[in-house]
Amino acid sequence: MSNRPEKPVILADQVRTTLTGLEPLSRKVFLALTPPSSLDNRADVDQLRQNLERAFQSVRVPLSLMPKIPGLCRSSDWKVTATLAETGQGWELIDLEPGDTTPSHYGLAIDIGTTTVVAYLINLCDGTVLGHAADYNDQISLGEDILSRIRQAAEPGGLARLQTLIINTLNRLIKSLRASSLNSAQITAAAIGANTTMIHLLLGLDPASICRSPYIPIVNSPGLIPAGELGLEIHPLAPVYCLPSIGSYLGGDVIGGVLVSGMHKQSSVSLFVDIGTNGEIVMGNEDWLVACAGAAGPALEGGVTAFGMRAEPGAIDHVAIDGKSGRVEYTTIGNLPARGICGSGLVDTLAELFLNGIIDRTARFTQGREEYIVVPAAETAVGKDIVVTQIDVNNFMATKGAVNSAIDLLMENVGCHWQEISHFYAAGAFGQYLPVESAITIGLYPDLPRSAIVRLGNSSGEGARQVLISRSKRLEAETIASQVTYFELNANPSFMEKFVSSKFLPHTDLDRYPSVKERLESRA
Amino acid sequence: MSNRPEKPVILADQVRTTLTGLEPLSRKVFLALTPPSSLDNRADVDQLRQNLERAFQSVRVPLSLMPKIPGLCRSSDWKVTATLAETGQGWELIDLEPGDTTPSHYGLAIDIGTTTVVAYLINLCDGTVLGHAADYNDQISLGEDILSRIRQAAEPGGLARLQTLIINTLNRLIKSLRASSLNSAQITAAAIGANTTMIHLLLGLDPASICRSPYIPIVNSPGLIPAGELGLEIHPLAPVYCLPSIGSYLGGDVIGGVLVSGMHKQSSVSLFVDIGTNGEIVMGNEDWLVACAGAAGPALEGGVTAFGMRAEPGAIDHVAIDGKSGRVEYTTIGNLPARGICGSGLVDTLAELFLNGIIDRTARFTQGREEYIVVPAAETAVGKDIVVTQIDVNNFMATKGAVNSAIDLLMENVGCHWQEISHFYAAGAFGQYLPVESAITIGLYPDLPRSAIVRLGNSSGEGARQVLISRSKRLEAETIASQVTYFELNANPSFMEKFVSSKFLPHTDLDRYPSVKERLESRA
Repeated sequence: MSNRPEKPVILADQVRTTLTGLEPLSRKVFLALTPPSSLDNRADVDQLRQNLERAFQSVRVPLSLMPKIPGLCRSSDWKVTATLAETGQGWELIDLEPGDTTPSHYGLAIDIGTTTVVAYLINLCDGTVLGHAADYNDQISLGEDILSRIRQAAEPGGLARLQTLIINTLNRLIKSLRASSLNSAQITAAAIGANTTMIHLLLGLDPASICRSPYIPIVNSPGLIPAGELGLEIHPLAPVYCLPSIGSYLGGDVIGGVLVSGMHKQSSVSLFVDIGTNGEIVMGNEDWLVACAGAAGPALEGGVTAFGMRAEPGAIDHVAIDGKSGRVEYTTIGNLPARGICGSGLVDTLAELFLNGIIDRTARFTQGREEYIVVPAAETAVGKDIVVTQIDVNNFMATKGAVNSAIDLLMENVGCHWQEISHFYAAGAFGQYLPVESAITIGLYPDLPRSAIVRLGNSSGEGARQVLISRSKRLEAETIASQVTYFELNANPSFMEKFVSSKFLPHTDLDRYPSVKERLESRA
Repeated sequence: MSNRPEKPVILADQVRTTLTGLEPLSRKVFLALTPPSSLDNRADVDQLRQNLERAFQSVRVPLSLMPKIPGLCRSSDWKVTATLAETGQGWELIDLEPGDTTPSHYGLAIDIGTTTVVAYLINLCDGTVLGHAADYNDQISLGEDILSRIRQAAEPGGLARLQTLIINTLNRLIKSLRASSLNSAQITAAAIGANTTMIHLLLGLDPASICRSPYIPIVNSPGLIPAGELGLEIHPLAPVYCLPSIGSYLGGDVIGGVLVSGMHKQSSVSLFVDIGTNGEIVMGNEDWLVACAGAAGPALEGGVTAFGMRAEPGAIDHVAIDGKSGRVEYTTIGNLPARGICGSGLVDTLAELFLNGIIDRTARFTQGREEYIVVPAAETAVGKDIVVTQIDVNNFMATKGAVNSAIDLLMENVGCHWQEISHFYAAGAFGQYLPVESAITIGLYPDLPRSAIVRLGNSSGEGARQVLISRSKRLEAETIASQVTYFELNANPSFMEKFVSSKFLPHTDLDRYPSVKERLESRA
């Protein structure tokens, strides 16, 4: 006679979720099942599923797992740990292990930048970062920037090559994070923050339409994809969640940043700015969010300025000019002889040149100069003077102008004034390494009370970590993506007008930079 | 600026579902999508999904389909037909075609018997049967009955061989059903009725535990499995639904039969009986269902009786004995010279032998006979007398005894009397071809008013058709499976007692067979 007795089942996951509040993309549940008998003759798979469905609504058991279930239950005395993954519609059993393995529960938070890829190994029991690894995106070998990657994808076999390159990059990072202590199947979930093009290339989707009017991506919300379909070397059934994009030029990396900032939950208005080769700006509060994006110019990216370089050993990262002696004081990364100037060094240099009157408010060298020697040849590792030229300054002004114009235009469109901005969130490298005072001096950051300037660091990676471990954060990210109104800057005729008029240091309207004005006056 | 306008979308499926009441496992929806513009810049996949989600709650778009969506939408002027499949948790897009292909919507209903496999091609627009094809189960080459298949599965490579054989059988039937008019991807759903062992072998699951105490299958409710994972040559993402089993000896074929009978919705008590090599009996009504199953003996299966054969050309299928002349009148299938006797011919023969006093109530030949010549050698195709022997009669009595004992025991256990039985549902070959009056005469069918005897034919196949086209029938089948209380006959000491005492024609208690009693008296 068939019976379905309600035996107590240990749901360690439930207890843990209650304690930590975590709701990761994958869950582990320790179960003490009932050995079948004539009194409880349920089939093994059915018993397992029914027990799981007491805590998880609707659990699919894939056929591929069924063959191992009877043997594993019996050899482990019916004490097993089930790993479940969100399907977007319910849950799927993705693994079954003997005994209680709930303390070994790992996920990946990933930030795929056009240049740099960072992966964080996350303990899904408590959400902590166990380690991180970063490396250049292997796709660089086929093109430095997004547009050249899109062009490469259009070549025969190009899309598959680009996908392989990013998967290889990720698998290398995963391998180094796992080291010898974890096997790949122990990582059972991943979340990814990246721009729309990087997501298309990761998924093997043609990005051609991204840069072609009307700029329609193939997908903004790809849903949950089994890692095995991508070739990611973690558990093949691990769900991979991509932070949703808003469009071709506003990706999940920005949504992740907004999520991390919390600006979408505040009553006061905030600005979120991420500047790389492209710049993305989001403004708003709990009631509304507007955004724009566009090419920001190359000034803050290493490799474009005459002596520009990435923030690597030998890069000049901090610069001060003694007003009286004119002597330059600088530091380099790793205290090595200087090889070039990275972003933070450039911002410092420009601010010091401006404060010392070496360049004027129109960003031109004074006294007939055409360049400025930051480090003389003798002190360098490259055997020649490391200089900042008028061209470098002009490049910077183009970037700053584009950012300022975009912000001004966004504010004008929603009828918002600088006085109303409660927080300025700076994301990415733009929000991690730049010297705050110098960035304000040259008008890259706004001249707000310093406590209102919040640097988020790698908010794309942190956003990925948050959605990896929290269902409500995933819903929040999706709500943000659905709420943002996107402004097409290129389509706006007053953009160029603003762009031209914003080419002053720190800004056309000096009154918007009271602390800089004060400093200039004190130096004069 | 991003907008999500609510454009009208034609949902042909909704209209059709409303008209026909059909809710098949897969659905087709014709969509007139909006060509994207700067006013509606949703990503292609997102727009498609959002449109589908107006009618279908939660639609997953698999990564494998995403690459083809943009091109297909554009080349078809944004008029496309989406095929959706139930996932058990929501819906999955499994195909996208240009234009309106909703009238071409096909599914398969399949009955996998240990001996015979039948496939029906179903028009999912209206639920009609477009064609059917039947063939022997290729697994017969590895063993005639369930136990020998289970033994074969335990051999090295045996399970995979058995799975391949049934998949080959099915693919052959599918190919013949498709003929030249359909391609395999146009069949987008399948439902299967089969006993528990056949389902295990189909899914590649080891059936060893089915015949080993405590008789626990690996799975009773396998859920929905993509056809591609099984190797079925229909759309690889087509969901395959197996009617749920109750246990090792009560499979989805029986659940399908109960579903088709409708006994689970009636207030009066019914009996459902399916007899082959194994017999299954279900009794109950809308409030309760009890069931038992067991070996029924070989009498009704061709190939075991001395001249037994399957219902093939040359089989004697109807027999009458002229009481006065003693002459035998018979027909054969195809009107060919007799080669043997199939089930219906045997039942007729036994009834006529009994009614003519050639065998007595204890089922023994009278007047020193040891056999009865049904067809003399000269009239046959085999060149020798086709006879029924005492051994054949004994075999039949064992089958009948087992069935009667099981029914009696079931009735005794629930305290139910024959007078309360409103319907007797006979399923399978047992319910399709046996001559009713003869079956009653020898006690194989009960002596109920003839209108209460309902022959269901291939109710496993018909059950599969019903769950294929109806979500509510699927839920009904699952409710039936969860409600049946299974009696283990082997564990019951009074079974043998009843078995021994039921070896009379038509039954120990002749009063239970009033019409037979009357006929016997009129002949005497």
